[in-house]
Amino acid sequence: MAGLDTPLTPLRFLERAAEVHPDAEAVVDGDRRITNSELADAAQRLASAIRASGVGAGERVAFLATNRLELLVAHFGVPLAGAVLVAVNTRLSPQEVAYICEHSSSRILFGDSDLLAALDGVDLTVSEVVDLDTGHEEFLDRATDERLAWEVEDETATITVNYTSGTTGRPKGVMYTHRGAYLNALGEMHHQGFVHGSRYLWTLPMFHCNGWCTTWAVTAAAATHVCLRAVRGDAIWRLVDDERIDHLCGAPTVLTTLATAPHAHHLDRPLTVVTAGAPPSPTVVGQIRDLGATLVHVYGLTETYGPYSICEPRDEWSSLTADELNVQMARQGAGMITADRMRVVRRETADDGTLVDVEPDGVEMGEIVMRGNGVMKGYLDDIDATAEAFAGGWFHSGDLGVMHPDGYVQLLDRAKDIVISGGENISTIEVEQALASHPDVADVVVIGVPDEKWGERPKAFVVTREDASVDSDTLVAHVRARLAAFKAPREIVFTDALPRTSTGKVRKNALREAESAG
Amino acid sequence: MAGLDTPLTPLRFLERAAEVHPDAEAVVDGDRRITNSELADAAQRLASAIRASGVGAGERVAFLATNRLELLVAHFGVPLAGAVLVAVNTRLSPQEVAYICEHSSSRILFGDSDLLAALDGVDLTVSEVVDLDTGHEEFLDRATDERLAWEVEDETATITVNYTSGTTGRPKGVMYTHRGAYLNALGEMHHQGFVHGSRYLWTLPMFHCNGWCTTWAVTAAAATHVCLRAVRGDAIWRLVDDERIDHLCGAPTVLTTLATAPHAHHLDRPLTVVTAGAPPSPTVVGQIRDLGATLVHVYGLTETYGPYSICEPRDEWSSLTADELNVQMARQGAGMITADRMRVVRRETADDGTLVDVEPDGVEMGEIVMRGNGVMKGYLDDIDATAEAFAGGWFHSGDLGVMHPDGYVQLLDRAKDIVISGGENISTIEVEQALASHPDVADVVVIGVPDEKWGERPKAFVVTREDASVDSDTLVAHVRARLAAFKAPREIVFTDALPRTSTGKVRKNALREAESAG
Repeated sequence: MAGLDTPLTPLRFLERAAEVHPDAEAVVDGDRRITNSELADAAQRLASAIRASGVGAGERVAFLATNRLELLVAHFGVPLAGAVLVAVNTRLSPQEVAYICEHSSSRILFGDSDLLAALDGVDLTVSEVVDLDTGHEEFLDRATDERLAWEVEDETATITVNYTSGTTGRPKGVMYTHRGAYLNALGEMHHQGFVHGSRYLWTLPMFHCNGWCTTWAVTAAAATHVCLRAVRGDAIWRLVDDERIDHLCGAPTVLTTLATAPHAHHLDRPLTVVTAGAPPSPTVVGQIRDLGATLVHVYGLTETYGPYSICEPRDEWSSLTADELNVQMARQGAGMITADRMRVVRRETADDGTLVDVEPDGVEMGEIVMRGNGVMKGYLDDIDATAEAFAGGWFHSGDLGVMHPDGYVQLLDRAKDIVISGGENISTIEVEQALASHPDVADVVVIGVPDEKWGERPKAFVVTREDASVDSDTLVAHVRARLAAFKAPREIVFTDALPRTSTGKVRKNALREAESAG
Repeated sequence: MAGLDTPLTPLRFLERAAEVHPDAEAVVDGDRRITNSELADAAQRLASAIRASGVGAGERVAFLATNRLELLVAHFGVPLAGAVLVAVNTRLSPQEVAYICEHSSSRILFGDSDLLAALDGVDLTVSEVVDLDTGHEEFLDRATDERLAWEVEDETATITVNYTSGTTGRPKGVMYTHRGAYLNALGEMHHQGFVHGSRYLWTLPMFHCNGWCTTWAVTAAAATHVCLRAVRGDAIWRLVDDERIDHLCGAPTVLTTLATAPHAHHLDRPLTVVTAGAPPSPTVVGQIRDLGATLVHVYGLTETYGPYSICEPRDEWSSLTADELNVQMARQGAGMITADRMRVVRRETADDGTLVDVEPDGVEMGEIVMRGNGVMKGYLDDIDATAEAFAGGWFHSGDLGVMHPDGYVQLLDRAKDIVISGGENISTIEVEQALASHPDVADVVVIGVPDEKWGERPKAFVVTREDASVDSDTLVAHVRARLAAFKAPREIVFTDALPRTSTGKVRKNALREAESAG
């Protein structure tokens, strides 16, 4: 009788929100405010228009859009049509956007007017381009009165494809399933604490892992999405105050924007701030605490639906000093409730090819691996890359870390970012955190640069706080007081800003290339 | 690559609780207090001992036990061994217990000393009986040092069998799956609001639908179970106060015990009280509100893992009067987040055999049907009953109700409890609620009794409050002021207590039989 199990799909969340809280506010986007019932209608209309446009089951539909109502509707409407959503990073070059449209065989490309304008002169393989600002209503007029079922036949069918940021090589298309999206959304709902009445601010791009599945999780709780098109301090604070925001997410750089904006002020009601993308520095942790907000640190990759693990605070941490707590909080923690265990494994597998865990001593470095419902189905049209990523039956993150005795994982570095100096591994993240713990340091990145004697040596790029006058010697001494001497950078460059990817990660690759070039 | 999806199982919840909050309190049972780490160890030890005893994959293991630590451990340890848990209602007769052991082919029967003693002289088909009070440690000594994986190969494998109360005929064995238990536990966690730090009091029997899946849901949140072996007002209040309880569940009769106990007092911190089994009367709703607790009304059956739907309060209800709110709150609501939609369908199907919804007008009566992950896999070894229950692809509850214009379902009666008088359907629940709204009425039940002229007529049994002196005429007038005249009982019997099943439901069948007999 198991055939009676209903296939898992996040479409159910919108069906239910519209059933149970039809008149509650679903989305706020500037002056536009719609209810759950209207959001469901909008998804139905989009789905019907997509089908009327000849898009078949499993075919892709691309969106090049900011955090706007239409992109949120698409997270339900596109899969409701039986199609697959490709939400494209808006900060990519025209050529990269064209590549993603071609690689995903997207049939239609929807986009913001100005983002589409930037594609002028680029060859696009899509059959149709729809301008969300000028042509969307006309497109939607193709819809009939049909109401599609909020169902999917096969829960392992692809619901979205998210392209990796591809710091090296071509971006890869990460396939999420209806089942994975459903479960990860429930996991986010639990760990972020979404309930009916929650008000979520979109400081995170929706095109980034479908907003870590919060596109679906917020609606699962019949809570309210508040759109934000550009991450600016004044806009964030206006919405936090006026829209009574109690949840938001972002990379640490977004948190810095939040905490250092002129409008920043202590909050008199709860705000949960979830961060990922890089371990939050002690400075950021302290700043968020000073606002009166609660910081939640999670960790994951595009391949893991966004967050896979959470650094869940433990009861015994309540007796730690702020500094001790910061160290605990900067770790990546353990698998979320809907994920499997997270492991750290050795480079060498056992004789039978199985993966061998490192010692849980906080010292032995290995690769972080994950599996299960929190991990993608595979890379679109790339069997080789998929097989390589899943060698030994676990997804290989390419991230290096250690397993602590308490079962929490700590990320040390991306495999390609590790600095090998005199045969010793140096975690650039570790050095970055040591530098970031100095009160005059606002932002920092460490990379490995060639060194005749040692092979490589760490080099730091530091952004200081306004009015700070710290010098290199002081910072090096600060690091040496905290880490082994060989880990201290012997060269520190002071700069105004660090180059970052669209998702807030420092582009270490670009810095390394600049070093090599000159 | 979908093969990498990990099969869903609530075993993962204990694995994770022991990983993330190893030293947090998992279970309190009298003087015994164990941590999540110790609970995981206990489940491993039980599982190993069960396997060492020759119990094979998919074989059944029965427990006849009160709400004690060992039964909670069994909810993880038995499935960890690959076996299937049968938690038997402790209030059944020895013959019924023997029947369930035989029908489920249980290999081992574990039980409380006094409950096993009551089986003396009864033929039991099990190979082994283990007294939890005197022989359990010896049984557990069979365990080896093996650590079993917190995994299951097939998520649609049976995890437990729960026997229906069987007011008519033999009890049927309802099969729950690992997948269903996992999803329903996540649903309970969300709707009941379990988080790490929550403290849950076991006022609900664990043998009743595996405690509505809260056996697993509380541990999913790495929260704390507080056992309670007998539902007495003094014991409840001592634990609520001393153990800082913030969640409990029970049938309305349990809530009445809670609210009317000598120790009852207003609470100065949150307490969520979840009720099911019968619509809470306005009196109970008011009493729980007066305690300062939050009442959550859910609805389901043994076949639906306990709760399937929830009467989720809507924003607009905040402007209702207490009386208006009580009416809203007494409804059964809509499917939980992990369930499908709940429907009310006509007796006559469409020409193609599909089910036809009643008008959503709050008037047309039909049968409540459910399906999906919130519904059992089927009845153990009873293909015919399973096929009949799932006619048309939906599970037929046997409950009659209406669909309101706002999408919420209201239960009117069990199909067999409806009174047909002069060709008119009379919902006994509706009449009961009208009577219960009188301040002097403490408890009430209405049944249909034979009537020469009308076929049947409603008859009420009423328990009045202490010191109340209300008479039949007053109560009949009270009902006539609220319902159509033909629905008012023309006969009211005043009594000291109503006969109830072990799960708190009034045994209407017994009352009807007594009427027929005499």
